[in-house]
Amino acid sequence: MKARIHITLKDGVLDPQGKAIHNSLEGLGFDGVNGVRQGKFIEIELDGDDAAAAKAKVSAMCEQLLANMVIEDYSVKIDG
Amino acid sequence: MKARIHITLKDGVLDPQGKAIHNSLEGLGFDGVNGVRQGKFIEIELDGDDAAAAKAKVSAMCEQLLANMVIEDYSVKIDG
Repeated sequence: MKARIHITLKDGVLDPQGKAIHNSLEGLGFDGVNGVRQGKFIEIELDGDDAAAAKAKVSAMCEQLLANMVIEDYSVKIDG
Repeated sequence: MKARIHITLKDGVLDPQGKAIHNSLEGLGFDGVNGVRQGKFIEIELDGDDAAAAKAKVSAMCEQLLANMVIEDYSVKIDG
């Protein structure tokens, strides 16, 4: 099965990468943009067919390695 | 409205960052991982309330700036 993980900066944490994208979009002439936030998207292929166990395992991966829990949030979705 | 963009490497393009995550997960004792791919996740706040126009605009942003169309694919979802 496949786990789809989104890792995003917590609200209130400055996002210089998002700000740089915002400025570049304006430089290219795209108007009407009020804000840009950049995060990470990670797909993990896992053995097994127990979705609840997979979700628990991937959450542990996020907390131990993938996300910086001080400044980032994560969400995990398991696809069959 | 908010646009949610996923930018992922095309199939067949090597992903050294995903490989590094895979190795680190194994080093931490997580088994049963068959593959890891890392991509980008970008959220853009937009003016207006025309979802079709927003999608076209964000697709143009992806092709001109956000994605490297030679090696990356993108997908756009518009939330009301």
